Amino acid sequence: MSMSQLEAALNEWTCLLGKENVFCDSELIKKYARTTLACEISSLAILSPKSLSEVQEIVIIASRHKIPLYPISLGKNWGYGDKAPVSSGQVILDLSQLNKIHKVDKELAYAVVEPGVSQMQLYQYLLNNKIPLWMDVSGAGPDTSILGNVMERGFGHTPYGDHFLYSCGYEVVLADGSILKTGFGHYPSSKVSEVFKSAIGPSLDGLFTQSNFGIVTKIVVWLFPKPDYFKCFAIQIEDENKLLQVIDEMRQLRLNNVVQSHVHFGNDLRLLSSRMTFPYHLMANGNCLPNDLRLKLRNENGLSAWNAIGALYGNKAAVNANCKEVIRRISKFAKVRVFDDKRVALLNKLISIFDKTSFLSAYRAKLASLNIAYGLLQGIPLHQSLTGSLWQTKHQVNHNKSIDPLDYQAGFMWISPIIPMTSEHVNNALNIIQSIFQECGFDPFITMTSVTPRALCAVCTIYFDKANESESRRASDCYDKLFAAVMNEGYIPYRVGIQSMKKLKNDSPSSLTYWDTVHKLKEAIDPFGIISPQRYDPTTGD
Amino acid sequence: MSMSQLEAALNEWTCLLGKENVFCDSELIKKYARTTLACEISSLAILSPKSLSEVQEIVIIASRHKIPLYPISLGKNWGYGDKAPVSSGQVILDLSQLNKIHKVDKELAYAVVEPGVSQMQLYQYLLNNKIPLWMDVSGAGPDTSILGNVMERGFGHTPYGDHFLYSCGYEVVLADGSILKTGFGHYPSSKVSEVFKSAIGPSLDGLFTQSNFGIVTKIVVWLFPKPDYFKCFAIQIEDENKLLQVIDEMRQLRLNNVVQSHVHFGNDLRLLSSRMTFPYHLMANGNCLPNDLRLKLRNENGLSAWNAIGALYGNKAAVNANCKEVIRRISKFAKVRVFDDKRVALLNKLISIFDKTSFLSAYRAKLASLNIAYGLLQGIPLHQSLTGSLWQTKHQVNHNKSIDPLDYQAGFMWISPIIPMTSEHVNNALNIIQSIFQECGFDPFITMTSVTPRALCAVCTIYFDKANESESRRASDCYDKLFAAVMNEGYIPYRVGIQSMKKLKNDSPSSLTYWDTVHKLKEAIDPFGIISPQRYDPTTGD
Repeated sequence: MSMSQLEAALNEWTCLLGKENVFCDSELIKKYARTTLACEISSLAILSPKSLSEVQEIVIIASRHKIPLYPISLGKNWGYGDKAPVSSGQVILDLSQLNKIHKVDKELAYAVVEPGVSQMQLYQYLLNNKIPLWMDVSGAGPDTSILGNVMERGFGHTPYGDHFLYSCGYEVVLADGSILKTGFGHYPSSKVSEVFKSAIGPSLDGLFTQSNFGIVTKIVVWLFPKPDYFKCFAIQIEDENKLLQVIDEMRQLRLNNVVQSHVHFGNDLRLLSSRMTFPYHLMANGNCLPNDLRLKLRNENGLSAWNAIGALYGNKAAVNANCKEVIRRISKFAKVRVFDDKRVALLNKLISIFDKTSFLSAYRAKLASLNIAYGLLQGIPLHQSLTGSLWQTKHQVNHNKSIDPLDYQAGFMWISPIIPMTSEHVNNALNIIQSIFQECGFDPFITMTSVTPRALCAVCTIYFDKANESESRRASDCYDKLFAAVMNEGYIPYRVGIQSMKKLKNDSPSSLTYWDTVHKLKEAIDPFGIISPQRYDPTTGD
Repeated sequence: MSMSQLEAALNEWTCLLGKENVFCDSELIKKYARTTLACEISSLAILSPKSLSEVQEIVIIASRHKIPLYPISLGKNWGYGDKAPVSSGQVILDLSQLNKIHKVDKELAYAVVEPGVSQMQLYQYLLNNKIPLWMDVSGAGPDTSILGNVMERGFGHTPYGDHFLYSCGYEVVLADGSILKTGFGHYPSSKVSEVFKSAIGPSLDGLFTQSNFGIVTKIVVWLFPKPDYFKCFAIQIEDENKLLQVIDEMRQLRLNNVVQSHVHFGNDLRLLSSRMTFPYHLMANGNCLPNDLRLKLRNENGLSAWNAIGALYGNKAAVNANCKEVIRRISKFAKVRVFDDKRVALLNKLISIFDKTSFLSAYRAKLASLNIAYGLLQGIPLHQSLTGSLWQTKHQVNHNKSIDPLDYQAGFMWISPIIPMTSEHVNNALNIIQSIFQECGFDPFITMTSVTPRALCAVCTIYFDKANESESRRASDCYDKLFAAVMNEGYIPYRVGIQSMKKLKNDSPSSLTYWDTVHKLKEAIDPFGIISPQRYDPTTGD
């Protein structure tokens, strides 16, 4: 691509979209280049289409001029690169104006959404239209895109927590501008596009997730009826040995279908980070809390070394029976508390009465966390769930409005290895991960979510002060070490940030075959590499 | 491909495999050409490798000489084409000697199997090694391949009934002889290949199911622990109106997570076919039972117009609570009976005591069916589940040995449209389907399985006398009409027989884009079209 090609393309795009939807000013480009990582990646321009046909035309122009496009939904890929492309020299295709909820079917429990539809938008739609369906939400806050999270194969908390699994019928704009409909959607007569995923012939849905094969402009997401009864359980685990025992029990509860939600484990630090920011007033510098301070904060906030939540959904008597089994099996090793609507309402009422009594502060903090967890397990998108991202910010946090970590110059990187759900593997993985954090001088903020009955997804957060250059370098170094270690030990990440696409490939013949195959498939439908070059395609750019 | 190329390849294959594993004799080729359909498709030869490396070498030789290979697992794709390729001029790659169970992990509940591993083989393995894990089985009998069914995205009965969903980590030989490992398997260090499906980057599993993209030589299948308690429910529905009401209730029970197994609905005829063959002694010709005879046989066998089964698994109190809700909601419209181990044992004991009393014949017949359903819902592969395929045979059925419908010259075709799980759609679809059966002079044998809470998969069987040429033609005609009708009405099949690959594509732009994309992807990794030409690739051969 030459500058004249870019100029020609920009002219055509401006004719197509109007100059109010084509952005080249350095201020905005800088804004889109920001990430919570230690890097910024600038784009060439930003395009903001309003319709499917505009997306098609944009792609055709891009293909003609060989200009790479980097589609984003709402661009809130926190901790993994946000709005920024994998490399510079790309034009961002901002799909946030495609924000239509096409349909919600009450009977068959699904919604059809575009990339710009946020978690809150769908939640409000269900609420406003009194539709008794629940959605699954990720913890990334109300303003994130539903479709974007599906494309990254993100996860949430309820039995529908595997977002890829509970979606189907993708509408995809290919590099030649044609529209591909996955599943049954390509049959114009189809009455089953929204209710069955794999359809007929090779199943293509997976190809368009964590990839750069096309631009997904519409998907079906499955919802579920508000259950007759809902109960949430919270587990407090006093140390890592007990954690390992809880892990083994919980695997069995998940495999035996007693617990159908994801179960979310978080260490004390990770939970602290959602309640406060780093106590700069106590220690001006450094990223590590001294042990005594960590314990003090843990106790003040009513936390344990590890803390877990999960929920039960369905017939009231069945929920209660399953709940009893959870308590019976887990309380041998940890404290289990259960909550339903009545109990949560009562607790909130009590706390509001005794609001001024300071000796209840630990309870108040716990209740705040419970309210968040309780909401997430019911598919309510809450901006409080994103507060954790601000741990290292030096700005005052405004809890009354939506949080954009970028506005707070929040520095954090996520690394998310999969771990088999056994005590042995969890022990091994935690030892490796925690020792690297320590070695690099960062506190380990760790959650682990049982995304299947057999597997945990750990999300390890490295927080750092973005304003501090040497700390940023140290954070990147810590990330690299963690990445190398989990790859080396076989706890492979389920998703990576823009800084790690190249690292996905190693020199083993099987890895080469895999990524070469991916690249051959990519070339077959995007021969000029127009869409998101290098994204989950480590063979490109070699 | 010329004859000399074939000859050269056969020589090389013989050197590789030994002449005892390369078959060109017309007798065997004829045997492999047989189908339960109205067609036979001859292959050029049959190769029977014993190892992965032999498969690789075979493919390399085939690629060099441009000879198409048609891989089969155990070749028991009944009703959809059996062992036979989509077109003649292909060499069958019979993978039945790759029959190793590589591993069963008790803790994480999975097995690693090759294409030649049958349902019975894994079942026996679990039994012999006293491993308290259950598997999901299809109703296609004990001798069918587990891997083969996953590749066709077949289904079973338990909560793990979606065979594609509960498998991962495929080992695939590509057309160039290289080995691709899907999921995390391509990382040599990986400890998570068996516990997490989508892995990192584009998810490729779906690409190798219902396709011709590669030869799958090993997969992981997920199993589940024997539940603490198991209860099966059987529903008798007296007419189609009641069926529609049950469908709506059952959708809600499935969506509300009360019932987690597939629920299997069968009409009277379909159940009759699993208990007896066509009563040629009462009516020498014809495929349709007169209404009074149909009613008589229905009553004698203790059947209703529609009959359904499903099961509940887990904590005993939770199972009982969910069971109560099933009874409460369904018994408004139909008779519900529930069975657990104790009750089934008691019934079998009672019947054995009163065995000679003929007035119990309906009960005896019902109990036989219950025993089969009860077994399937526990993942026990039973050859009785395949008896239904023999409806139109004129041979004496030997119930004491495994059934191969081909040995009985059994004629039947399966057509399997997906229907949204609402009364409205079921009513519409059944009207269309049943009227075509009637119009074509065949009785409608129909099952519908709730493969997801939102969708039913109907399997409609056209039985015909293979020895009767005009009847075979009429059957094919009926199949074509059914196929056109369900496509036209938007109830698209989830899987098709070898006779229908071309019919998957229609003239709509979206259908053309879809199948062209599939073909481009195919060409990218199999440029010479070596593997299973035309299989789920309707663009080939145009």
